Amino acid sequence: MDQQDPRIADLGFARVDVDRAARTGDPEVVYGAGKTPDQVVAILRALHDKHPERAVLATRLTPEALATIGEALPEATLDPVARAVTLGPLPTARGTVAVVAAGTSDAPVAAEAALTVAVHGAGVERIDDVGVAGLHRLLGVRDRLAQADCLIVVAGMEGALPSVVGGLTGVPMVAVPTSVGYGASLGGVAALLAMLNSCAPGVTVVNIDNGYGAGVHAARVARQSAPR
Amino acid sequence: MDQQDPRIADLGFARVDVDRAARTGDPEVVYGAGKTPDQVVAILRALHDKHPERAVLATRLTPEALATIGEALPEATLDPVARAVTLGPLPTARGTVAVVAAGTSDAPVAAEAALTVAVHGAGVERIDDVGVAGLHRLLGVRDRLAQADCLIVVAGMEGALPSVVGGLTGVPMVAVPTSVGYGASLGGVAALLAMLNSCAPGVTVVNIDNGYGAGVHAARVARQSAPR
Amino acid sequence: MDQQDPRIADLGFARVDVDRAARTGDPEVVYGAGKTPDQVVAILRALHDKHPERAVLATRLTPEALATIGEALPEATLDPVARAVTLGPLPTARGTVAVVAAGTSDAPVAAEAALTVAVHGAGVERIDDVGVAGLHRLLGVRDRLAQADCLIVVAGMEGALPSVVGGLTGVPMVAVPTSVGYGASLGGVAALLAMLNSCAPGVTVVNIDNGYGAGVHAARVARQSAPR
Amino acid sequence: MDQQDPRIADLGFARVDVDRAARTGDPEVVYGAGKTPDQVVAILRALHDKHPERAVLATRLTPEALATIGEALPEATLDPVARAVTLGPLPTARGTVAVVAAGTSDAPVAAEAALTVAVHGAGVERIDDVGVAGLHRLLGVRDRLAQADCLIVVAGMEGALPSVVGGLTGVPMVAVPTSVGYGASLGGVAALLAMLNSCAPGVTVVNIDNGYGAGVHAARVARQSAPR
Amino acid sequence: MDQQDPRIADLGFARVDVDRAARTGDPEVVYGAGKTPDQVVAILRALHDKHPERAVLATRLTPEALATIGEALPEATLDPVARAVTLGPLPTARGTVAVVAAGTSDAPVAAEAALTVAVHGAGVERIDDVGVAGLHRLLGVRDRLAQADCLIVVAGMEGALPSVVGGLTGVPMVAVPTSVGYGASLGGVAALLAMLNSCAPGVTVVNIDNGYGAGVHAARVARQSAPR
Amino acid sequence: MDQQDPRIADLGFARVDVDRAARTGDPEVVYGAGKTPDQVVAILRALHDKHPERAVLATRLTPEALATIGEALPEATLDPVARAVTLGPLPTARGTVAVVAAGTSDAPVAAEAALTVAVHGAGVERIDDVGVAGLHRLLGVRDRLAQADCLIVVAGMEGALPSVVGGLTGVPMVAVPTSVGYGASLGGVAALLAMLNSCAPGVTVVNIDNGYGAGVHAARVARQSAPR
Amino acid sequence: MDQQDPRIADLGFARVDVDRAARTGDPEVVYGAGKTPDQVVAILRALHDKHPERAVLATRLTPEALATIGEALPEATLDPVARAVTLGPLPTARGTVAVVAAGTSDAPVAAEAALTVAVHGAGVERIDDVGVAGLHRLLGVRDRLAQADCLIVVAGMEGALPSVVGGLTGVPMVAVPTSVGYGASLGGVAALLAMLNSCAPGVTVVNIDNGYGAGVHAARVARQSAPR
Amino acid sequence: MDQQDPRIADLGFARVDVDRAARTGDPEVVYGAGKTPDQVVAILRALHDKHPERAVLATRLTPEALATIGEALPEATLDPVARAVTLGPLPTARGTVAVVAAGTSDAPVAAEAALTVAVHGAGVERIDDVGVAGLHRLLGVRDRLAQADCLIVVAGMEGALPSVVGGLTGVPMVAVPTSVGYGASLGGVAALLAMLNSCAPGVTVVNIDNGYGAGVHAARVARQSAPR
Repeated sequence: MDQQDPRIADLGFARVDVDRAARTGDPEVVYGAGKTPDQVVAILRALHDKHPERAVLATRLTPEALATIGEALPEATLDPVARAVTLGPLPTARGTVAVVAAGTSDAPVAAEAALTVAVHGAGVERIDDVGVAGLHRLLGVRDRLAQADCLIVVAGMEGALPSVVGGLTGVPMVAVPTSVGYGASLGGVAALLAMLNSCAPGVTVVNIDNGYGAGVHAARVARQSAPR
Repeated sequence: MDQQDPRIADLGFARVDVDRAARTGDPEVVYGAGKTPDQVVAILRALHDKHPERAVLATRLTPEALATIGEALPEATLDPVARAVTLGPLPTARGTVAVVAAGTSDAPVAAEAALTVAVHGAGVERIDDVGVAGLHRLLGVRDRLAQADCLIVVAGMEGALPSVVGGLTGVPMVAVPTSVGYGASLGGVAALLAMLNSCAPGVTVVNIDNGYGAGVHAARVARQSAPR
Repeated sequence: MDQQDPRIADLGFARVDVDRAARTGDPEVVYGAGKTPDQVVAILRALHDKHPERAVLATRLTPEALATIGEALPEATLDPVARAVTLGPLPTARGTVAVVAAGTSDAPVAAEAALTVAVHGAGVERIDDVGVAGLHRLLGVRDRLAQADCLIVVAGMEGALPSVVGGLTGVPMVAVPTSVGYGASLGGVAALLAMLNSCAPGVTVVNIDNGYGAGVHAARVARQSAPR
Repeated sequence: MDQQDPRIADLGFARVDVDRAARTGDPEVVYGAGKTPDQVVAILRALHDKHPERAVLATRLTPEALATIGEALPEATLDPVARAVTLGPLPTARGTVAVVAAGTSDAPVAAEAALTVAVHGAGVERIDDVGVAGLHRLLGVRDRLAQADCLIVVAGMEGALPSVVGGLTGVPMVAVPTSVGYGASLGGVAALLAMLNSCAPGVTVVNIDNGYGAGVHAARVARQSAPR
Repeated sequence: MDQQDPRIADLGFARVDVDRAARTGDPEVVYGAGKTPDQVVAILRALHDKHPERAVLATRLTPEALATIGEALPEATLDPVARAVTLGPLPTARGTVAVVAAGTSDAPVAAEAALTVAVHGAGVERIDDVGVAGLHRLLGVRDRLAQADCLIVVAGMEGALPSVVGGLTGVPMVAVPTSVGYGASLGGVAALLAMLNSCAPGVTVVNIDNGYGAGVHAARVARQSAPR
Repeated sequence: MDQQDPRIADLGFARVDVDRAARTGDPEVVYGAGKTPDQVVAILRALHDKHPERAVLATRLTPEALATIGEALPEATLDPVARAVTLGPLPTARGTVAVVAAGTSDAPVAAEAALTVAVHGAGVERIDDVGVAGLHRLLGVRDRLAQADCLIVVAGMEGALPSVVGGLTGVPMVAVPTSVGYGASLGGVAALLAMLNSCAPGVTVVNIDNGYGAGVHAARVARQSAPR
Repeated sequence: MDQQDPRIADLGFARVDVDRAARTGDPEVVYGAGKTPDQVVAILRALHDKHPERAVLATRLTPEALATIGEALPEATLDPVARAVTLGPLPTARGTVAVVAAGTSDAPVAAEAALTVAVHGAGVERIDDVGVAGLHRLLGVRDRLAQADCLIVVAGMEGALPSVVGGLTGVPMVAVPTSVGYGASLGGVAALLAMLNSCAPGVTVVNIDNGYGAGVHAARVARQSAPR
Repeated sequence: MDQQDPRIADLGFARVDVDRAARTGDPEVVYGAGKTPDQVVAILRALHDKHPERAVLATRLTPEALATIGEALPEATLDPVARAVTLGPLPTARGTVAVVAAGTSDAPVAAEAALTVAVHGAGVERIDDVGVAGLHRLLGVRDRLAQADCLIVVAGMEGALPSVVGGLTGVPMVAVPTSVGYGASLGGVAALLAMLNSCAPGVTVVNIDNGYGAGVHAARVARQSAPR
């Protein structure tokens, strides 16, 4: 009977859940890792056809997948830094998420987080290159931090930025460790552990490089924080 | 010159920051682990004297510390399950945080989270004993989950509850792994890893047994989500 | 003297045990990883020649090995999703194993498990795309779970599915963690730890991505459970 | 409304699920770790009162809890080696589980497994002191292994016993690593890893020292394997 | 022949190297962990008798050892916070080491570092309670940091302080992770990894809680930096 | 407003801090890993243009980046062993750092350390091939070790060299573990742990393969140790 | 039938293998950890009664067990440093094992190794306090090292001693890491990893603190190396 | 002055120790990993020229290095399975080492061990395909095991073979874990831990895949055990 289930689109190689928004209010998302470019295109199309009025997001795309999507779906918007794509109109933004990144190497994760926030209906403020070894830049943006409804703080190496930001403001924060580093950074585990042990109260953490997860949480918080 | 700094109360064994609320809007908190009962009492008194109109929270208290506080500060409110104490009036609650716990062994962490939420100015809804091996109970509270402004989901062992709850609702969620388990639970690391790898989007995580951290984040989200 | 041992076929690069079925009742299996396509073909042939009336299974095959086998042994049955091959007639199926998979990324491991079950003489029931973040699908197949003689539950990321399935039914279950995930999934270790710590009683676990091992155990259970 | 739920017995400090048998066919079990002796007695009583015709099992009991139960519930059966207790009549045994242990230090885990099997309705055959460094004993019990419906193989240190047993027979097997060992045994992790990597096909594994989990799985297999 | 070696004092339970200063210029040090109070007293005496004009340091002393030493060697100077003792005159101080600590829980390690610096012939400047979540205090001591010849930066939890300090000044720095924290702090490993991955250039690190090692290195640097 | 900040050069793909020397006295450094050859060239040019009188260092360069820099910036000095480049005049050397390496496989890390020392204004003394399994060579250079102002000791595998050197001399030392080794060397973690646990007092450690970090620290120490 | 097996002595709480010497030529050994003093006495007696002409060894004894044995078996020889006991005449020594220890904290492990060697029939040469931070002592015993038939090298902390000794002589060597150390010594894992990665060829390693295992191997080597 | 040192051959890219045999009696060995084919050829030539009457061994060679050596040094003997080469006459063999391997995947490591034994002057007996899941083969070679002077036991996956062999014979044994396996074999760490925790007394262990190290130790033992 599942075959007839209108909540599922059966593409042969995958059975796509086209009903998620009804359950959680979130847009549809395609996790691109491990899928061929053609599979990503097919799933994007199936989701877009079902709900053309909503944005679909595809993440973790290879350069090949980005190129294939660019040709097959010219109406899609490509974000090469975030290695992601959106198809369909973005929702109206409510509330603001500030995406704060420590270094330029953290840019891909910060970009994935920012795009995810936009697709999930919140506004984005980008604050880059505010690593803890140069406090003057961070102190210079203190007001912008305080005005956000939610913060996403992205950092690799020793992962210290969330602690410092958390001492400057009481805005809800999600920290994202990145796999930037070498040797005993252990692929991001050092930053992850540091963030989990932050001395600043209220820092929550997502998986290494998981800009998407941070974006979903932050957008939810920002949207419900904005006056209606 | 620091000695004269009105933002610091010097107790000899500790220099207490009595100015935190001005910076982040949070109440003062005493982390009781590693302090003697008398030290906890002294710090509580110093903070309370400085701002008698606000609540002070002390966490991670030994039974001895709880007893000493009960005698020395009879106006304090003891919470033996949370191993915590509050002194001074709780703030008016704005918004609601649902604290969801998988098993009875998770009760101390859930209680610490709940008390922290209250001290930080949000309302608390407790939902206990909804482990994933008994889905009927969890499905029975689905509406209560959806009505909260933020969820705190507490679980030990395999840490699966946040994923299941995250599939039922789009309310912002903080997951708290507990050290409940044995053998390859590795003191809560198994649950922590599971939560960081949740297939439900938007799950954020705090350190093992860190009900306090989850409470701070969730209260901030709930307060700013509530209509003013 | 070993050279003359009829229980061993000496191929030069390997001495193949052609007597295993007599000891444990299991079919012969070739573990393809680390072997050249030609070596796999040679071993398959040696085992098939010895016992043409029984099925031989080869697993962990590269695309090249699959292609080479397809040409060299046209009577072989290729399963590209499982990256496996069988040669010779499958045994009559006794009993039923339900192979339950959380996501489409788990398909290769689930397919390896399913093919292994069939080669080891039990029937297979496939139940896909029943991740814990979408409970409605899982609850919809509850009866099919209960009717199986043994369950194989395949999941990556947080590895929560065995706990939820284990709360729905008392059928013997083997859980298979997969290496699906990123960052702190640690190549499947997160899912492995979660399954070892499942709060559902009676969940047993095999190595990461080890669909073959789960299939052997489950087929043995199913065959001896079926009325003769 | 839950308070009226006949499936739950509310003891104040715990809400006991008295309906589990109806869902999974398993007896009620009290996990004693972290509970006071009086709490264990209270829960045992509540479960026994609800279903006096069935056995209740309590595991991981301290010597104090065992003594308290012995006085408060004289009709209970104490098993000090297994650190466990049963209350109420054991079910009729169907099928046989052989519990195989490598050394005398593994006795508590083997005893917990054996008692769990009995409480879950299968017969038990104990085979002790058959470590791999003394193969003659193991080879001497080969027939007893082959006649069982399911094997539980308990071993610490290098955890090699399941591999050797798995080469001798094709009976379904659950391996239980124990925390016996020192230094780089890492509290049983060495044995756990060895068992997960067994070269014998079809070995499934439970958590370190988890005789209970192995017993549940094995009893289910043995019961459904026995002719009715 | 070793028995006659004047570089060794044979106490029966230990052969004490009384010649170390000649080789490396460092004072003699007794590592108290694992030694009885009487053994510590005996070794202190042997070293002091050999070179009464120099200071001897004993570290990692239990409260019992401190008390025993206090009685047996009334001329010794006890430092209960550092859990250490010195016997004999401190050398004249050359150069200055600033010992910077994040929180009050780091006090024992900071005190051990400070005392070690003094015993090794450099001056000490203590800067406490300058955690990264309260930057105003840290920024207030920036000049004191810059005037030191070497910095010892002590921090637990997420270990972020060395990175922030390293961005404020180019003074040579040794970072000391402490075991302060809980859950995924892993006994100080989180702080250790963070410090090894510091984005501030030139941060060197010693073992967890190793105030002694940091003190030796910093004193050597400070002494040779001071104008003669 | 940041765009106008004279302390920042905005290259589009990166915002380069051209003001670091003013804050810490260190030269500018480009971390080449993860940057394209053209990006490295652009950053080197921007930094060199801003301060042509100072040296700029670029590390962790691929062979492609080295070749591109060689063509685009013919005035740059290439160091292929160190995989690094300098542009602009080196500062006058003050003090001496001895860079000691255990084996030829450690050469790239030792070369990066040596070049970093030179760029940061100290003299360099190279001592190679003095592994602990051939003590005669090490003992033969004892005087050269003692005459340095700071030591950098580079070793992979078991990382024993710092302990042996530390027993020979009291010169301040930084140990650098390298990723040389295999199997349970765990990519340099074995050497890192050994160095953190050195029985020689005062050994400080940097991250695996981090010749740059060791060079910065050692140069600072050497410069301030030299008579002015 | 096993009960009648003359190779087994059944003591109720344990079935003792009294036939091991016939299989491997080794004496009987009782591993005392986890056994009560009375159990150790009973096993020692059973083994001694069976073969009064041979030595029996008991290791890992608590002070209580040592005291109980001293009273119950006055003919036993106690070794409190090794925490071990022998009963019955030692075999004639053939060949020599040099037991080399880095520090006084390694004494218990070195003593266990030395006693094991003696019980297994080889002569023992003790060389203590030859840590790598004081090479003069080690170089002074070079001839004694070279004259042994096998070396046991015991070290904690960074575990460097085997590499240095292995560079001085080609005598077969077993390295024993000890759990001496703190912080990132990880209970001896740092020393274990260092020894496994020794740059000196031919170093073999046993488990942390496993003086017994090293003693068995070294005694076997020494005995067969000695001229008969 | 080192340049003139006759114990060192300076090749520019490496300073080769040509004096090792005089110190330890071992032949010269070139570790090929990380060296170019031409570098290996040059070092082999330098060592061979110095001592043409002795064998030189090169290990860990890539296929390219093997081909280059085959052309440049036609008198060299290539061993492609061991990925190694010898140059110069092998020494006369004294004593016998049995190299025992569990599976065909362990062949490269076993071959490296065997060749190392031969180069170090002992005889080699190869015993392959005796995995613990097929005990009949292992029991069939029991006499050959007992007649060796030393055993090298090579196994991957669960690493159980040394324990079983160690129960069959008292010949000195070195165990070599291999990186064969997948998932939670963790690149050989599972087998390494199992061997370190072997219940058979006297098992010593070398690093993962370190056939060379095992060969050196075993050859030393065998040579000194053989009657002269």
